[in-house]
Amino acid sequence: MSASYQTIEHDVPQSYRDKILKWNGWGYTDSQFTINKDGHVTFTGDKYDISGKVMPHFRPWFENYLGIDLNYVSPAQKLSDVVIDAPVENEDLIDFLKENNISFSNSARIRLMRAHGHTVHDMVNLREGKIPRLPDVVVWPKTEQEIVKIIEGAMSHNCAIIPIGGGTSVTNALDTPVTEKRAVISMDMALLDKILWIDRENLTCRAEAGIVGQSLERQLNKKGFTCGHEPDSIEFSTLGGWVSTRASGMKKNKYGNIEDLVVHLNFVCPKGIIQKQCQVPRISSGPDIHQIILGSEGTFGVVSEVTIKIFPLPEVKRYGSFVFPNFENGVNFFREVASRRIQPASLRLMDNDQFVMGQALKVASDSWWASLKSSVSKMYITSWKGFKVDEICAATCVYEGSREEVDQQEDRLNKLAADFHGIVGGEENGQYGYRLTFAIAYLRVSRNL
Amino acid sequence: MSASYQTIEHDVPQSYRDKILKWNGWGYTDSQFTINKDGHVTFTGDKYDISGKVMPHFRPWFENYLGIDLNYVSPAQKLSDVVIDAPVENEDLIDFLKENNISFSNSARIRLMRAHGHTVHDMVNLREGKIPRLPDVVVWPKTEQEIVKIIEGAMSHNCAIIPIGGGTSVTNALDTPVTEKRAVISMDMALLDKILWIDRENLTCRAEAGIVGQSLERQLNKKGFTCGHEPDSIEFSTLGGWVSTRASGMKKNKYGNIEDLVVHLNFVCPKGIIQKQCQVPRISSGPDIHQIILGSEGTFGVVSEVTIKIFPLPEVKRYGSFVFPNFENGVNFFREVASRRIQPASLRLMDNDQFVMGQALKVASDSWWASLKSSVSKMYITSWKGFKVDEICAATCVYEGSREEVDQQEDRLNKLAADFHGIVGGEENGQYGYRLTFAIAYLRVSRNL
Repeated sequence: MSASYQTIEHDVPQSYRDKILKWNGWGYTDSQFTINKDGHVTFTGDKYDISGKVMPHFRPWFENYLGIDLNYVSPAQKLSDVVIDAPVENEDLIDFLKENNISFSNSARIRLMRAHGHTVHDMVNLREGKIPRLPDVVVWPKTEQEIVKIIEGAMSHNCAIIPIGGGTSVTNALDTPVTEKRAVISMDMALLDKILWIDRENLTCRAEAGIVGQSLERQLNKKGFTCGHEPDSIEFSTLGGWVSTRASGMKKNKYGNIEDLVVHLNFVCPKGIIQKQCQVPRISSGPDIHQIILGSEGTFGVVSEVTIKIFPLPEVKRYGSFVFPNFENGVNFFREVASRRIQPASLRLMDNDQFVMGQALKVASDSWWASLKSSVSKMYITSWKGFKVDEICAATCVYEGSREEVDQQEDRLNKLAADFHGIVGGEENGQYGYRLTFAIAYLRVSRNL
Repeated sequence: MSASYQTIEHDVPQSYRDKILKWNGWGYTDSQFTINKDGHVTFTGDKYDISGKVMPHFRPWFENYLGIDLNYVSPAQKLSDVVIDAPVENEDLIDFLKENNISFSNSARIRLMRAHGHTVHDMVNLREGKIPRLPDVVVWPKTEQEIVKIIEGAMSHNCAIIPIGGGTSVTNALDTPVTEKRAVISMDMALLDKILWIDRENLTCRAEAGIVGQSLERQLNKKGFTCGHEPDSIEFSTLGGWVSTRASGMKKNKYGNIEDLVVHLNFVCPKGIIQKQCQVPRISSGPDIHQIILGSEGTFGVVSEVTIKIFPLPEVKRYGSFVFPNFENGVNFFREVASRRIQPASLRLMDNDQFVMGQALKVASDSWWASLKSSVSKMYITSWKGFKVDEICAATCVYEGSREEVDQQEDRLNKLAADFHGIVGGEENGQYGYRLTFAIAYLRVSRNL
């Protein structure tokens, strides 16, 4: 990485973002799709179901489906080759940060790590080109009062602020506009990552906005609760990010989306801290200011603390899956499920492309795949249980609740699926399909391609 | 009614509000609590369960509980005695309305009928005193375009607008501020009362904002659907009013509150019509403008059309009830129900006062009451099944869903209630308690008191 300016920094924290996340791709540095010496696709690391496994069907399917020859590679630029422009100078701001003992840095790598979200376009920029404009200085508030202070400083010294949580944004909200002439502060919420309290009686939990989803959920689980919110990005995205992006969770049928879960929040703006005067889930009068903050993507202020609903851990969690002869049957099944309001915690429909890709990603030893008798990539078979391989679609589901409730839900869905010529695909396939969500995010980039 | 000014009006519609609703009390003119010749409380008309019935226990309980002697009466002022101030004159506005063929009237009675909500304070004003400030002219838009036109006229001619739906407001939002010097237009939405379409596939319905709740629900029922929203005021309140007041419904556990049901709406403002460009139940980005309109009480503009979610009529609707030894046990039962997320469509807790009042309102022939062996008003008994009469509380519930679902819900709640020493009070009492909601609204005023 070449940068022709002097780094200025103060009390820089060691954050997970800089230590264990890729600088130019999704997720953990140790987790990657790659091609092994036999020419097969494997997945590195040990964090996922497919980690360390060989997926023999994937390469043929991938090459065939996308018409790509994986012998042709275009390696990404190295971090050392990336050219980083000098930041917009604002000495008054730097002095202000120093005077107020705010942790900050304008180091090239630290700025680069916070300059983008995770769209495919972002990935291409990082690997092939250049991020058009980086934020000029990164700050790490340690308290809500420091957020207030930093915003005051930004106002006084003519700066813009872009708050960053997990950085998994796909809305370009983390981009610094190329036309921005002011110094841009990236406000990294990583140090505000604590649960403040859990109210067992009212089933609420208040936490600092920078807490990462999986950490929040793990801590709640230990106390016997779940937050119920499970976006694809839960490993990296933060509570404040969920609010700022109006996040949807995969189990929203049971727990609601983030706007259904937020009970109270503190929102630090140039004019001060906005917060409702009561901590109740609903007020039956007046416009709801929370709903303007939700989805505002950091444009109006910074979410500093959030109270969310929590739920006792369900007695039973069970996966399920269905296979339908075609997408239309799948859609009609979903419509009927919605109409009868019998959705389990999660129910997700995959079209034929997704289904086949999911099958192609199965590891060498998988049994269901074996029952297809042949690699889909070769298309030796045209039907399976009467279904055409190029029309099949599938649904994964997650049941959560009391045993009685889950048994009943499962029974109902299984019966209903039959009305749409659906076949119950079993728990193992459901779990596989649901959890694959977290691994396929890594498909965007591959180590040696 | 005395008014010392010349009425000006054009094409005045015959609306239900002026024809069948009381001018100085809740609801239908023919429905009233009153004292019969035997000195017992009865309820007039034929619209409610208690209509035409004698409630022998009510008067003694009422007199005892409130310490009131019902022989002392203070009859309300007669409509003919009410003095109505002349409206603020605005000839330009009147000319504008005439030119644009807008239905309007400044008649004293028509203004009075739209000058208030239904708080107890409003009732006292109507019966004993005076509404401090009336709107100056009432208009009845017949189309959304007429709403646009009227708002244009109001802007051009320096007027304020107060939209009115069912007029059941308890937030004082229908009050014309006494300090308001401009001419105030009451925009009566009564003529915009049609269902525009029902989408059976997407389970949505679009209707004009002035449609009255019971009419909307009745029409949907005929087609096999329900809107699921059942506020106490459903007989009189309107779809647009539900949105403008952020209404909660008694069956919100199953169907959600109004903010959960709105999919799309048109909102006519001074700057034009605000509407989202898509008709989907949720957008996973950006602030939600609907949530600013919801609860805005007519201050920003006029809701003209609303698309709401609808639901297939449930296979089974069943009432239920529980009696608990005291309020604390009731609250703890509710907490556990919430924690286990096993709420039926409606579940409402009544404290001891409400419970005893509900019992005292039972009609002469009621059997459950008989099982109490004596009139509560006399307090001859101190316990019933071990419960103390002055501590008992009760819950009513409504189950809606498939037979299987309802059976299971009922079974679960019945078992859980036992953990809190609750006794199942049966379906009849549940239905009685739930539906009493609609009749007790009439308790505020009585014909001959």
